[in-house]
Amino acid sequence: MPILIREDQGAIARLTLNAPEKLNALSDAMLAALQEEFDALREDRSIRAVILGGAGKAFCAGHDLKEMTQGRQAEDGGKAYFADLFTRCSKVMTAIRSLPQPVIAKPHGIATAAGCQLVASCDLAVAAEGTRFGVNGVNIGLFCSTPMVALSRNIPRKQAFEMLTTGEFIEPDRAIALGLINRAVPADQLDDAAMELAETLASKLGSAVKIGKQAFYQQLEMGLDDAYDYTRDVMVENMLDRDTEEGINAFIEKRPPDWTQ
Amino acid sequence: MPILIREDQGAIARLTLNAPEKLNALSDAMLAALQEEFDALREDRSIRAVILGGAGKAFCAGHDLKEMTQGRQAEDGGKAYFADLFTRCSKVMTAIRSLPQPVIAKPHGIATAAGCQLVASCDLAVAAEGTRFGVNGVNIGLFCSTPMVALSRNIPRKQAFEMLTTGEFIEPDRAIALGLINRAVPADQLDDAAMELAETLASKLGSAVKIGKQAFYQQLEMGLDDAYDYTRDVMVENMLDRDTEEGINAFIEKRPPDWTQ
Amino acid sequence: MPILIREDQGAIARLTLNAPEKLNALSDAMLAALQEEFDALREDRSIRAVILGGAGKAFCAGHDLKEMTQGRQAEDGGKAYFADLFTRCSKVMTAIRSLPQPVIAKPHGIATAAGCQLVASCDLAVAAEGTRFGVNGVNIGLFCSTPMVALSRNIPRKQAFEMLTTGEFIEPDRAIALGLINRAVPADQLDDAAMELAETLASKLGSAVKIGKQAFYQQLEMGLDDAYDYTRDVMVENMLDRDTEEGINAFIEKRPPDWTQ
Repeated sequence: MPILIREDQGAIARLTLNAPEKLNALSDAMLAALQEEFDALREDRSIRAVILGGAGKAFCAGHDLKEMTQGRQAEDGGKAYFADLFTRCSKVMTAIRSLPQPVIAKPHGIATAAGCQLVASCDLAVAAEGTRFGVNGVNIGLFCSTPMVALSRNIPRKQAFEMLTTGEFIEPDRAIALGLINRAVPADQLDDAAMELAETLASKLGSAVKIGKQAFYQQLEMGLDDAYDYTRDVMVENMLDRDTEEGINAFIEKRPPDWTQ
Repeated sequence: MPILIREDQGAIARLTLNAPEKLNALSDAMLAALQEEFDALREDRSIRAVILGGAGKAFCAGHDLKEMTQGRQAEDGGKAYFADLFTRCSKVMTAIRSLPQPVIAKPHGIATAAGCQLVASCDLAVAAEGTRFGVNGVNIGLFCSTPMVALSRNIPRKQAFEMLTTGEFIEPDRAIALGLINRAVPADQLDDAAMELAETLASKLGSAVKIGKQAFYQQLEMGLDDAYDYTRDVMVENMLDRDTEEGINAFIEKRPPDWTQ
Repeated sequence: MPILIREDQGAIARLTLNAPEKLNALSDAMLAALQEEFDALREDRSIRAVILGGAGKAFCAGHDLKEMTQGRQAEDGGKAYFADLFTRCSKVMTAIRSLPQPVIAKPHGIATAAGCQLVASCDLAVAAEGTRFGVNGVNIGLFCSTPMVALSRNIPRKQAFEMLTTGEFIEPDRAIALGLINRAVPADQLDDAAMELAETLASKLGSAVKIGKQAFYQQLEMGLDDAYDYTRDVMVENMLDRDTEEGINAFIEKRPPDWTQ
């Protein structure tokens, strides 16, 4: 079995981290497989939403510590390898943001360290009840500095600081209240709930979702005036889309739209 | 009746969007009326707080889609018109931020798309129970890109992304928890609740509220060190205000202040 | 008794604001004592966590208004004094952020104006039930412009604006929901709860917490891509720490780490 499984169901691509014996650790092989799949999805116009889950008892427990430790055997003590590893990992995380399709994380069991970062980096997240989220690298002396980039852009700062420095886990109710995930369901309903949300997203006009997602993250990093200048142009582009014209006409005429996409 | 009603009650200006047959859509005429009124309020020293509500069964359902569709008949397919429309709309939204007086949104019924943006753009919001908030343009193929500028500066990003891409509505309890509004009351108490909050604001020293509101939004876009450099100067200016001197003296002497403003 | 008491207990430094007759106001003397102690702690490698509380019935009620009023007697009406005062105060607040050790606020009774800013500026906060938090300077005509810098980086903006312009207090349940504090306990358990949290932080690898805390605030002010570039280097530095190597080895070998720090 491949380390990353992709199963398409209509316009939905379901990705499954598949190294359950390693709690789906983000090893070199796993990062390469994720990057390859995201690069493929970016060009795949048949896919309108992506779900990211994990096989076995955990979603993802972060980096592969044994592999990282082996990296220390290089002459520089691993310095170049680690720099390359975290660059590749960050590239995977930001690839989610730049993917035209929305990506839904589907965590269950454990989502810790870079596994929690993966949840935080996705556009949306539906979790199984009982999932434990944490950035617990501090417990072994490795502060979750890259995971905190994603985490601290999802939840309030005192709560992020607490998770990062205590290493304590939070459960879905708390993760929802803080903003880390969107909702939680019983484990046996997780696949259905994620698929239902993905199908809702896929039912929208793809071109609108694509320019909207891109604009969402772009404008978040701007001041208010720049954000409005930028999104004005996005709205104009959106309005001039033939399918948007049809969507608005259909709404005015109280009929379903006949979209070409 | 005018498309925008202004009724002053003491130091409170109550604005009411008044195109109930169009669910108070932000048509060209409505945007012009709002801009004109905000420009007038900016210079009106008798007014210390503003309430913005809507007549009929909805607060505001966003842009006027029929009018926008007519704009497509121009030679350029509406491109110049749409660019101008979204520029005017953004100018109205940011006028709220730059108004010296605090502005309280008073939504009821429906606050969707640019109507939800209006709520998000106000300094404060008191809603009627049962109000439905949404950025549902995606349902007709027009992603709410300009509304998201305001929305994503009010609520956490995963929750904003969910609203924008699913088009689903939220109700006041959720809107309070996320940060979109401050409180909700039964519909028949809405006017009183908004007025009570406005009167609380109006009872404060106007010059202090004015420089405080301006500083609030300015410093939000700065790094921490710049924000402190800037607000230090604001505090000094505030301290040198004669009425602030009187306010502090009155507090020390345990008597009510005798303010000139 | 000194105006600021420091009691070390193992690796924990407990600071207590000690001007209870002034509700621990941030007078010139108190600010100087805080700055001096933070400067000392910065160099003190024996201390791994700091707790900041207050003696008497309140944590801190903000600036010393009587002292500020005396400052008006200068030829310039106090202008230079106020500018210096707010500079010194902001320096104390940002010293908390730049301190290598995590700082836990331990408010009880009242935490208002610059006292609320102190809570917001700490990395973490554990409060006594019944504590009242507010930025109520507006009630005397002095908008809490410097406190809002810290407050508005902890809680959503509409809720921050409401507190700043109404001057109303919030209690711990609300402060937790908004993100201003981490947790609340009965007053008679406050010392123990703060100490327990401090000991949890102190049990982690000090070098990891130090670089993690610094990186936390640095990356918050960056765009996503810059934040990842920066934290990649932080992670590499962290990985090359001998104690981190031991921490990871111990984890892989399922034994407790033998750290030199």
